[in-house]
Amino acid sequence: MQTVATTSDSADTVDLGPASGLSCRECGERFALGPIFACEACFGPLEVAYDLPSGDPEELRKRIESGPDNIWRYAPLLPVPADVAGKPNLNPGFTQLVPADNLARELGVTGGLWVKDDSGNPTHSFKDRVVAQAIEAARAFGFTTLSCSSTGNLAGAVGAAAARAGFRSCVFIPHDLEQGKVVMAAVYGGELVGIEGNYDDVNRFCSELIGDPAGEGWGFVNVNLRPYYAEGSKTLAYEICEQLGWRLPDQIVIPIASGSQLTKIDKGLQELIKLGLVEDRPYRIFGAQAEGCSPVSAAFKAGHDVVRPQKPDTIAKSLAIGNPADGPYVLDICRRTGGAVEDVTDAEIVDAIKLLARTEGIFTETAGGTTLGVAKKLIEAGVIDPALTTVVVNTGDGLKTLDAVAPTTGMSAVIRPNLDSFREAGLA
Amino acid sequence: MQTVATTSDSADTVDLGPASGLSCRECGERFALGPIFACEACFGPLEVAYDLPSGDPEELRKRIESGPDNIWRYAPLLPVPADVAGKPNLNPGFTQLVPADNLARELGVTGGLWVKDDSGNPTHSFKDRVVAQAIEAARAFGFTTLSCSSTGNLAGAVGAAAARAGFRSCVFIPHDLEQGKVVMAAVYGGELVGIEGNYDDVNRFCSELIGDPAGEGWGFVNVNLRPYYAEGSKTLAYEICEQLGWRLPDQIVIPIASGSQLTKIDKGLQELIKLGLVEDRPYRIFGAQAEGCSPVSAAFKAGHDVVRPQKPDTIAKSLAIGNPADGPYVLDICRRTGGAVEDVTDAEIVDAIKLLARTEGIFTETAGGTTLGVAKKLIEAGVIDPALTTVVVNTGDGLKTLDAVAPTTGMSAVIRPNLDSFREAGLA
Repeated sequence: MQTVATTSDSADTVDLGPASGLSCRECGERFALGPIFACEACFGPLEVAYDLPSGDPEELRKRIESGPDNIWRYAPLLPVPADVAGKPNLNPGFTQLVPADNLARELGVTGGLWVKDDSGNPTHSFKDRVVAQAIEAARAFGFTTLSCSSTGNLAGAVGAAAARAGFRSCVFIPHDLEQGKVVMAAVYGGELVGIEGNYDDVNRFCSELIGDPAGEGWGFVNVNLRPYYAEGSKTLAYEICEQLGWRLPDQIVIPIASGSQLTKIDKGLQELIKLGLVEDRPYRIFGAQAEGCSPVSAAFKAGHDVVRPQKPDTIAKSLAIGNPADGPYVLDICRRTGGAVEDVTDAEIVDAIKLLARTEGIFTETAGGTTLGVAKKLIEAGVIDPALTTVVVNTGDGLKTLDAVAPTTGMSAVIRPNLDSFREAGLA
Repeated sequence: MQTVATTSDSADTVDLGPASGLSCRECGERFALGPIFACEACFGPLEVAYDLPSGDPEELRKRIESGPDNIWRYAPLLPVPADVAGKPNLNPGFTQLVPADNLARELGVTGGLWVKDDSGNPTHSFKDRVVAQAIEAARAFGFTTLSCSSTGNLAGAVGAAAARAGFRSCVFIPHDLEQGKVVMAAVYGGELVGIEGNYDDVNRFCSELIGDPAGEGWGFVNVNLRPYYAEGSKTLAYEICEQLGWRLPDQIVIPIASGSQLTKIDKGLQELIKLGLVEDRPYRIFGAQAEGCSPVSAAFKAGHDVVRPQKPDTIAKSLAIGNPADGPYVLDICRRTGGAVEDVTDAEIVDAIKLLARTEGIFTETAGGTTLGVAKKLIEAGVIDPALTTVVVNTGDGLKTLDAVAPTTGMSAVIRPNLDSFREAGLA
């Protein structure tokens, strides 16, 4: 298997719909569709290039609106075959865009505040969107085993999607992961392999396996299928705009792990503008990190173009990537759109989780707490304009990070089963 | 507050859409809409009566299909005001009806097998459907506090829904509930009160509170709002038929706790037939219990009309109601439709949870394991016909009952981060 592309790659039999090839984000070199992720010329990351539909935007809008209630309504804009909706897949997406009126009141937002709630996905995180694309690429390239390195959430998303789609799965995790996360990942019946080492060791081992005959026929969703996988995050942009009535939000707050999601949401918004599906007007993108893993936020504040790696130490484990691959692109986008990157402490993350639960009945995980915490901080600082429309992206589910809130969340009172005890507790 | 209805109740100002009143399931006596749940004449349970829409079924079908992607598309058939979709609510429903082709192959089902996957609801169980109805009834009756007795799942559903809808909530649970469930219920910021006693003590206390001035203005979703609350389960029937292309399934397997859900799914199917939205043809309803709490199954097998209470002892805690209120109605329905009630052991429940995860990538809780376990048992026994269409209802999410599968779910191997170790483990 190749890890670096050559222009001689042939992909005559590959049908990934509007995807016309791969292009290098750094030097622009083009490659045929294939399980490759780095440019031969400059080692830059590859991304999917498209022949997007031309013609009347109104017709495309109607075609989308009459599609299925999941990400496949956007199949004409994704690297998937046209008949994707008929294939076995978890069919994630079209999650609720919740009008967060109670939260808006509490934060003093007057221009409209929405939470894009991706906890409604099949395995309850946005990962289902990206894995769904990887599954279709794996089918196209003839892979029979799906794999990934993970610290938990992705492992479950891959295990579940592989089970539905009929792939063997073999997922690699650090051997000392919490038991709850191991169970969530292992229950789907694929191979779940603990690696004696930390997440970096797991990653290094996966790269080694891709280059070895033992990895023949294996699609690593976040390595050799990464260009396709990453495109799944575009659907967040499409859905937000469609659910707002085919309108761009003024401001959007997005968590940063590798930074891929933020860059792909921007890509999605740009595509909608180019296709005439939304009016072309300014929007601002804000990135959110935890203070304990804030390399992009630090670079943004220091005015740097490069991101200095950090050793993560935060409860927001699903965002704890100390050397985020897409960091520089995130900086570009947040600066270009007039946005910002900010970080919050673990205590602010917990407070934000509780704030969202108390105001909107949405229980998010630590990544969502980070995003809302940053939104709150930027609103209070006057960086996010409360008079404009704002969307906060919630990427996950609080049931997966119960430990974060457990120490400060419990019963208000314990009483005996009678009215006197009830009155004594001051509950009447 | 009244707990027993009188025919003099006036509800001139109550707008609950097509709901025209309450009627006693035992003696048929009619009452005005109000926060009442037991018949004055015979103490039988009250249920909502309707003036259902008349006219062209095709028009009603189109009206439903153009509605929101949640339960409110069925507002014309529910006890809610016509403008319900614009009110703050968790907006549950229209969850996936998953074509379970892998599972069908494994079970030898050839006529089509679907899983109605209610883990996709906002708090990841079907409880969001019923609580959503109770919220609208609470608004109509001017309640300001929402309450319930719960062993966990309902507490979270009420806490979340109350937060979104702007109600105070005060939920009662046994004081010794597992910490995880306490966190899931408490995070929404309402009052969560532990009662020194078991679930029966909690229930008794709630009944006492309803009759006391301290309970003035309190809507107990599963007590004085129960007639409205219970109607939410009808939406499962509506969605299944619409998602099958406005067609009745031949066979449907449903878990039994109080039995309410099963009776309301039957009510929903009957309404669709009466309205001409589906063709009137036979369907069979099957009820699922855990062996450790199988009073309805025991009565069914013994040919009894009454249900003898049991002391529950099963891992399927969300089904562990030893004296199910709707047990006799469940027996009626399963017998009338040519169905059956069956039960499975805790080990079979765990096996079924893993079977569903492995074949379809759906991680269900113990209640779902019970339902699928019973479906499997009845297929193997030739009671469920594998050549007919079958729907299995999954009411909840495996993340809430991790303990059930944890002892038998883990890593396949632990290796060192190198290819030799990988090969030694036999993974290549």
